[in-house]
Amino acid sequence: MSNPHAYTPDEIAVVHRVIAERRDMRHFSGGHVDDDTLARLLEAAHRAPSVGLMQPWRFVRVTDLALRQRLHLLVEQERVLTAEAMGERSAEFMKLKVQGILDCAEVLVAALGDGRERHVFGRRTMPHMDLASVSCAIQNLWLAARAEGLGLGWVSLFDPAAVAQELGMPQGAEPVGILCLGPVARFYERPMLEDEGWTSPRPINELLAENRWPD
Amino acid sequence: MSNPHAYTPDEIAVVHRVIAERRDMRHFSGGHVDDDTLARLLEAAHRAPSVGLMQPWRFVRVTDLALRQRLHLLVEQERVLTAEAMGERSAEFMKLKVQGILDCAEVLVAALGDGRERHVFGRRTMPHMDLASVSCAIQNLWLAARAEGLGLGWVSLFDPAAVAQELGMPQGAEPVGILCLGPVARFYERPMLEDEGWTSPRPINELLAENRWPD
Repeated sequence: MSNPHAYTPDEIAVVHRVIAERRDMRHFSGGHVDDDTLARLLEAAHRAPSVGLMQPWRFVRVTDLALRQRLHLLVEQERVLTAEAMGERSAEFMKLKVQGILDCAEVLVAALGDGRERHVFGRRTMPHMDLASVSCAIQNLWLAARAEGLGLGWVSLFDPAAVAQELGMPQGAEPVGILCLGPVARFYERPMLEDEGWTSPRPINELLAENRWPD
Repeated sequence: MSNPHAYTPDEIAVVHRVIAERRDMRHFSGGHVDDDTLARLLEAAHRAPSVGLMQPWRFVRVTDLALRQRLHLLVEQERVLTAEAMGERSAEFMKLKVQGILDCAEVLVAALGDGRERHVFGRRTMPHMDLASVSCAIQNLWLAARAEGLGLGWVSLFDPAAVAQELGMPQGAEPVGILCLGPVARFYERPMLEDEGWTSPRPINELLAENRWPD
């Protein structure tokens, strides 16, 4: 019996294609994202699920070039500190390109809003589910951007308190990512960290179990 | 100049459609998810981005009916405790259907794996980015399921320590969701919590700002 809610095989294939072709981009080719496209991408983000329908996501669009440069500097500072924390892989890490804040068409800071303690639904024992909701919103934005041929990179190399201060965030709000968005010359065929030999992805079957955590 | 990486307008529309039609489902119609479909959905999850390519997601498929019932019971226990924490909205909350663990075709527990402290890339100051990665994986699975005409509900009403114990999770691993997956009679036209009058979603423009957090 066929499922009346299923999309056509071609449509299902598009969904899998965009999931497969999405990449965490660090190389951008400048250019521009028009306002309609940006609005469409933010609408896609806003259609994400959220725990108790709390919609904890906030987005700050960075149009001030000086602010963009300060965010870049904060990431550079954390890049050095992360490298120091990496021990023997420090030099290898420092060779990687980890962000494209200065090169991308648009910078968006994705954040958790303040006042989240009011929302208990699904969060009494798991308050961090608000981060899960923002992450789903970012993934929606990422997939919608890929379909438009736009790259997106999620940068989490920063001191969140410093970024919060730059943007004037109130107590209780916190940044979760600096999102670099825009045209790219090409999408990486594989994740860049795989291409660069940083790590090898594991196959999904190693990460599955049945009824009980594997020993 | 057209973007050579952009999908066709019809393909872009499919991506936005699946994002718009995904729902957090609590009503299932029993049935079955065939193995090929389940494997395809888990592959979609596995294609998610992850911080430093650490792939922190783990999935435990629950095929043991007694285990499924124990998970259901843990959620029921937390439902009562959450209701108590809700004060004046307690009775209203208790009327809501919050999960479909006993009715859905498949139950998957999504979790963070152990040993995550080894991964510093993108996590020195923001260790919780591993949860963001798992959340993106779940959103991929969710969208792929919707395209197949299958509903998914993400349940976070439980004591994570109790669920971890049920599944024999080691120190350092933690469950992030009990995912209910399977055929549904119909998809909600709007989020169920909106239909039920629990809350009204806010428009995206209230959640956007430029350069500085709004006052």
